Amino acid sequence: MISVGIVGATGYAGLELLRLLSSHSQVRITALTSRQEAGKRVDALFPQLRGICDLSYTAPDESALNDCDAVFFATPHGVAMGATPELLAHGVRIIDLSADFRLRDASIYTRWYGLTHSCPEVLAEAVYGLPEMHREALRKARVVGNPGCYPTAVQLGLLPLVEAGIADIDSLIADCKSGVSGAGREAKLGLLFCEAGDNFKAYNIAGHRHSAEMEQGLSLAAKAPVGVTFVPHLTPIIRGIHATLYARVTRRDVNLQALFEDRYRDEPFVDVLPAGSHPETRTVRGANHCRIAVHRPGDGDMVVVLAVIDNLVKGAAGQAIQCCNLMFGLDETAGLTMPALWP
Amino acid sequence: MISVGIVGATGYAGLELLRLLSSHSQVRITALTSRQEAGKRVDALFPQLRGICDLSYTAPDESALNDCDAVFFATPHGVAMGATPELLAHGVRIIDLSADFRLRDASIYTRWYGLTHSCPEVLAEAVYGLPEMHREALRKARVVGNPGCYPTAVQLGLLPLVEAGIADIDSLIADCKSGVSGAGREAKLGLLFCEAGDNFKAYNIAGHRHSAEMEQGLSLAAKAPVGVTFVPHLTPIIRGIHATLYARVTRRDVNLQALFEDRYRDEPFVDVLPAGSHPETRTVRGANHCRIAVHRPGDGDMVVVLAVIDNLVKGAAGQAIQCCNLMFGLDETAGLTMPALWP
Amino acid sequence: MISVGIVGATGYAGLELLRLLSSHSQVRITALTSRQEAGKRVDALFPQLRGICDLSYTAPDESALNDCDAVFFATPHGVAMGATPELLAHGVRIIDLSADFRLRDASIYTRWYGLTHSCPEVLAEAVYGLPEMHREALRKARVVGNPGCYPTAVQLGLLPLVEAGIADIDSLIADCKSGVSGAGREAKLGLLFCEAGDNFKAYNIAGHRHSAEMEQGLSLAAKAPVGVTFVPHLTPIIRGIHATLYARVTRRDVNLQALFEDRYRDEPFVDVLPAGSHPETRTVRGANHCRIAVHRPGDGDMVVVLAVIDNLVKGAAGQAIQCCNLMFGLDETAGLTMPALWP
Amino acid sequence: MISVGIVGATGYAGLELLRLLSSHSQVRITALTSRQEAGKRVDALFPQLRGICDLSYTAPDESALNDCDAVFFATPHGVAMGATPELLAHGVRIIDLSADFRLRDASIYTRWYGLTHSCPEVLAEAVYGLPEMHREALRKARVVGNPGCYPTAVQLGLLPLVEAGIADIDSLIADCKSGVSGAGREAKLGLLFCEAGDNFKAYNIAGHRHSAEMEQGLSLAAKAPVGVTFVPHLTPIIRGIHATLYARVTRRDVNLQALFEDRYRDEPFVDVLPAGSHPETRTVRGANHCRIAVHRPGDGDMVVVLAVIDNLVKGAAGQAIQCCNLMFGLDETAGLTMPALWP
Repeated sequence: MISVGIVGATGYAGLELLRLLSSHSQVRITALTSRQEAGKRVDALFPQLRGICDLSYTAPDESALNDCDAVFFATPHGVAMGATPELLAHGVRIIDLSADFRLRDASIYTRWYGLTHSCPEVLAEAVYGLPEMHREALRKARVVGNPGCYPTAVQLGLLPLVEAGIADIDSLIADCKSGVSGAGREAKLGLLFCEAGDNFKAYNIAGHRHSAEMEQGLSLAAKAPVGVTFVPHLTPIIRGIHATLYARVTRRDVNLQALFEDRYRDEPFVDVLPAGSHPETRTVRGANHCRIAVHRPGDGDMVVVLAVIDNLVKGAAGQAIQCCNLMFGLDETAGLTMPALWP
Repeated sequence: MISVGIVGATGYAGLELLRLLSSHSQVRITALTSRQEAGKRVDALFPQLRGICDLSYTAPDESALNDCDAVFFATPHGVAMGATPELLAHGVRIIDLSADFRLRDASIYTRWYGLTHSCPEVLAEAVYGLPEMHREALRKARVVGNPGCYPTAVQLGLLPLVEAGIADIDSLIADCKSGVSGAGREAKLGLLFCEAGDNFKAYNIAGHRHSAEMEQGLSLAAKAPVGVTFVPHLTPIIRGIHATLYARVTRRDVNLQALFEDRYRDEPFVDVLPAGSHPETRTVRGANHCRIAVHRPGDGDMVVVLAVIDNLVKGAAGQAIQCCNLMFGLDETAGLTMPALWP
Repeated sequence: MISVGIVGATGYAGLELLRLLSSHSQVRITALTSRQEAGKRVDALFPQLRGICDLSYTAPDESALNDCDAVFFATPHGVAMGATPELLAHGVRIIDLSADFRLRDASIYTRWYGLTHSCPEVLAEAVYGLPEMHREALRKARVVGNPGCYPTAVQLGLLPLVEAGIADIDSLIADCKSGVSGAGREAKLGLLFCEAGDNFKAYNIAGHRHSAEMEQGLSLAAKAPVGVTFVPHLTPIIRGIHATLYARVTRRDVNLQALFEDRYRDEPFVDVLPAGSHPETRTVRGANHCRIAVHRPGDGDMVVVLAVIDNLVKGAAGQAIQCCNLMFGLDETAGLTMPALWP
Repeated sequence: MISVGIVGATGYAGLELLRLLSSHSQVRITALTSRQEAGKRVDALFPQLRGICDLSYTAPDESALNDCDAVFFATPHGVAMGATPELLAHGVRIIDLSADFRLRDASIYTRWYGLTHSCPEVLAEAVYGLPEMHREALRKARVVGNPGCYPTAVQLGLLPLVEAGIADIDSLIADCKSGVSGAGREAKLGLLFCEAGDNFKAYNIAGHRHSAEMEQGLSLAAKAPVGVTFVPHLTPIIRGIHATLYARVTRRDVNLQALFEDRYRDEPFVDVLPAGSHPETRTVRGANHCRIAVHRPGDGDMVVVLAVIDNLVKGAAGQAIQCCNLMFGLDETAGLTMPALWP
C-alpha cells in the first residue's frame, strides 16, 4: 500500500485525484493540504465525497507530507519546485501536475512562466510523465513532470507521424478545443456560465505556454526541431480536449492506419479507432483513454489526426496516477479502469 | 459469480447497467440482447466501451437469457411482462426497469400504460425495488419492479414525514426537475439540443404515469391514501433529478433534521445533508446516492424537502444493481461505490 | 426624443438596456457611466455593440446625467438612492433597476439589504414599476422602483387569483427556476460554467430578498397579508425564469382560463396561453413578454400557474423601458417589439 | 412594400426569416407554406411568434406564391429547383437557401447532392448570394443561390488573402466549428441534447458538401483552382460558426490588418476586429455580422484567420434578406440592424 499526499486538493485536478484514487486499491491518501481550507473536512466543501473521503485539509507544512511515499502537486506553477528538494530529502517521490518539471530547459520555463527555476538540479533528473514516450524512465523516476493537457493530446496524436519521419515538421498545426475545466477552478469573469456558455472562441493565438512543451516532446521524437502552429479554443463542455492535427506527409505510400495501430498496440490507454472514425470527447469523459483517428481526406498529402482526452484525467490526474503506478511497480492501469460516464 | 443478461442494452438505462457492472467483481454479463443491433459488437456502436465490454448483441431469443441467473429488462413497457413467465420457469430472476411490475393494481397499470397486464400472477409476487422500503422482501424476490426515477426521489424525500404521520397527506406537492436523459434515447424533436437546450419548461401537468407509483408507495407508508400534486419539468442537464417537495406538517415540535437522519442512518445510499444544505444534482452525477436536505422556512408549518438523484443510477440502473445485490446475497453496495463525476 | 443615461452599464441588465434601446426610435442614450471603465468605448469592451453604440463610459459624476431626461440605474443596491435626490433636483426622472425604491417600508428594506434608506421621502413618492398593477401612477412618476425578476413572474402569475379572492393566501408556493444571468455579471465561483453548468440546485430557501417584494405586491392586490413560500433554484440556462406557482383555490366553480384571459386582455406583454399549455422560457428569450398557463390538475382545488419571463427583459431592462415609455407618454411597446430569439 | 412568401417555414432557417422579417418595415410576408402543417396557425406551433405573426400555413400550391414579389425557399435540396421555373414565369424572384442554385457546375451539384439539376438554364443565370463578392449582380438577379453557412464564414475569412494573391492556395485549411442548429430541425439521434450536449466531435472529414461551394468561390477570387482541407466540427452551442483558417502566405511584407480592413471597409456586415482580437460566436448571436480577426503567430508565414457568424443569420436567413434588399433596391441593412443577443 502506497501512502500519498495531495497538495492543492481544492482545484479540479486535485479533486480528480481524490475521485480516481478512491477506487485505487493500492494507494491510500494520508495527507491533503490546502493553506486556505486547513482544518475543514474535504467532504464538507465537496459533498460528492461524503462517504468517500473523511480526511480534513491540513496546512501544507512538511511533516505530514514528509511521511508519504509520494506527493502529488496540483498547485499553481512555482509551488512544487519550492517544496520538492526537502521532500526528496525525506525520500518522498514527486508527481507534479504543474509545469515546474516539464520543460528540460530552465530558460524556456522562465520565458513562459516568468519564474526562475529554483532547483535546476532536480529539473535535470525529472522525467516527463508521458508513459507512451518515457515508460522505462518513469519506473525509476523520483520526480515526474506530469504533462499539460493540450501537449498530451497533441503529442499522442502526432507521435506516430513524427517518429516515422513522414511529416513535414515545419508546418504542423494543432487546432485544439478544450472544455472549460481546463482553465481551472478560479472565479474569473470569462469562465462564467453566462460568458463561456453557448459561446465558442479561440484564445492566446499569439502564444500559449503549452507550445514549448509540445514542441519539446515532438522535437525529441523527431530528433530535429519541430514547429507547431497551436491555436487553442474554448468550447462549452466541462471536460474534454479535442485536438485536430494537420500534418503534410512527405510520403503517400504509408498505411497510416497500420502505423498508428502498431505504434499504440501495447498502450493500455491509447485507443486507435477504426479507419473513418470521428472520436467524441464524451467517449473519454472521466476515463484515462486517449482515442485517436487518422484521416487523409481525398487521399492527398494532408493528414488529419483527431485525438480526444479528458483534460482532467489523461490530461492531468489520471496520467499522474498512471505515472505513480509505474514509479511504484504497480499495475499501470490500477485505479484507472472505469469507463467513461456516458451520456 | 452471478451471470446476468440485459435486454435492451442500447438505451441509456441499459448502457448504464453496462457501465456500472463493468466494475462489479461478482457479476458477469453473459447476454446482451437487441433485436435491432443483433450481431454487432456493443463497442462498435458505443466506443466508450472499447476495452470494457467485448460482447455482441444477440437477438432476444430465450436460450441465452435462460441460462442467466438474472435478467435485467431495460425495455419499453410491455416487453418484460411478456418474457418473464418463461424465464422464471427456467429459474431466472428478473429485475425490470420498466413499469411492468411496479404497480400492485393491474387496472392502474392499464389506465396509465394502456396495456392489459399479461401475467397478473407474477405481478402479485413481484417486489417493488426500493430497498429503503422493501429490503427484506427483495432478498427473496424472484421478480423486482425497479422504481421509476421520479418516484424514487419523491418517495425517499417524503417517507420520513409520511411514516412519522406528521404531514398533511392530502396536499403534498412534488415539483420535480429532470435532466433530459430521463426521456430516453429516442430521436424526438423535443429532445434535440436546440429544443431542450437553453430552455426550461414543465410538461404533463395534467397527468404523469409516475403519479400512481409515488402515491402507491406513500400510501403504503402512510397506511392511508396519499395525494400528490406532481409537476415534472425538463431542465437542460444530461443526468439528474431534483425534487422540491412541499408538505404541510401537522406538528411543529418535531426535529425534522433528526427525523430524517434517524430514518436513513443505516442506508448506504441515502445521504441526509447537514441542516441548511441545498443538494446539487452534480454531487450524484454517475453515483447511486440520493442526497436530501430538509428545511422549514421561517419556522412555519410548510416543510420543504430537497432530494437529488442521478436518474440513470439511483433512478434506474444503479438501483437495479442494488436490488440484484440484495437478491443474490451480495454486498448491497457492490459495483456502486464510485463517487460522482465532478465537475 | 428622450435623452437617457445609464449608470452601471457593464452588467447584464445595463448591457440589455443598451441592446434594447438601440432599436428604440424615440430614446437616445447620451450618458453611460462606469467608475471602473471610464474613458473606454463601450464597444471596445463589448464587441457585440460595434456599429451599434459608439459611446464611451464616463465617470458617474452628475453633470452628464443631470442633462438627461431620465436615468436608469443598473447598479448594486444603495447606489441609486444616493444619487437620486440630486438628479431629481435637476428635473431628471429615475428608473432604478435595483431594490432601492421597490419596498414601501424602509425598515423592510433595511432588514433585507442591510442599508438604512437615505431618502425615505423619495421612497414615499416612488412608484413600483409593474405596469400591470400601476400603469396610471407610472405615467406621472418621477421615480420608479423597477421590480425584481422573480417578483415580476410571481406577481403576474398569481395576481388574477389573488385579486379575485379565490386563493388561500396563507399557503401560496412559488417554486421558481432562474437562469444564471439572474445572478449578475460577477466573477463568483458558483457561477462558473463548470459549477453551474450541467447542474441544478435550490438556494436561499431560508430567505431570499425577493420574498418581501412579492408579498408586498400580492398583499396590496389581496387587501390582506399574503404569505408565499418561495424556493428559488438555479437552472443552467443563460436567460429565463420559470415560476411554478401553487395556490389552493377556495372556489372550484371559477373558469380559471377565462379569469386569466380577462385580467390580461389589454396587456401588451402578458400572454395567457391556451388551456393545457406549458410555456417554455425560450419563447421569451430576449423578449419582453410574460407567458402564462393555468392548470387545475385532476380538477382538484390545487391550481398550478406557470409563468415564464426573460429575467433580463421583462425581469429587468425591458420592464424598465416599458416604464420609461409610460412616464414619457410614448407608445408603451416602443423598443420592445422584437420576438424571442428562437432557437 | 415587397410581398414575400416562405416555403418551408417550419425549420430553423425558415423560422429565422419570420423572426427577422417581423422587424423589416418594407417587407410583408403574405404566404407561408408547409405541406405538413397546412391549415395551422404558425403561432400555434411556435408560441414565440404569438402577437408577431398571425398567418397560417398553406399548402405549397403555386397560387399564393405566384402573387409574391419574392419567394424564399428554406427547404431540403431539390425543392426549389422544382418550383422555380413556374414562379419565374409569374415574375416572382427567388432566394433559395438550399444548395440548388449555389454551384455553377450542375455535375458537381449532382455529385454532392445526388440529384440531376432540373433547370440548368435557371442555374446559369442564378447569382451566388454573397454580397461581399457579387453585390452588383445581386441587384439585378432573378434567382439567388444563398450561400451555405460554412462557405460564408470560410470565404469571408479567406477572400482578402486569396484576392491579394498572397496565400498558398494549395494548402488552405478550414477548421470549422458549428453550433447544432446548423444540422437543422430534424429528429435525429445524434442531435439529441444527451448526444450533442457536453460533447465535441469532428464529422464528415472524408467529404462535406460545402467543400465544393467554398472552393468554387475562392477559385473565382483567386482566378485559379483553390484547394481547401475542410474539417467541420459540432460544438454544443445552439447558434454560431467559428472558422479557424490557416493559410501559408507567400509574402511576409504585407500588413494583414490593413489588408483586411481595406477589403471590408464599406461592408455593412463584415467587421474586422482590432489586431490581436479573438472573435466570439456570441457577439453575433442573432445578428447578421461576420466578425473577423487576422493573426500571424510568431510573425511566421502561417496566417490564422478567425471568422464568426450566426449560421442562421449571416449563414442563412439574414444573408437571404440582405440579398433580397439588394434585389429590390432597399436599404441593404433593412431588417438586419438588431445587435446580438448577449449574453
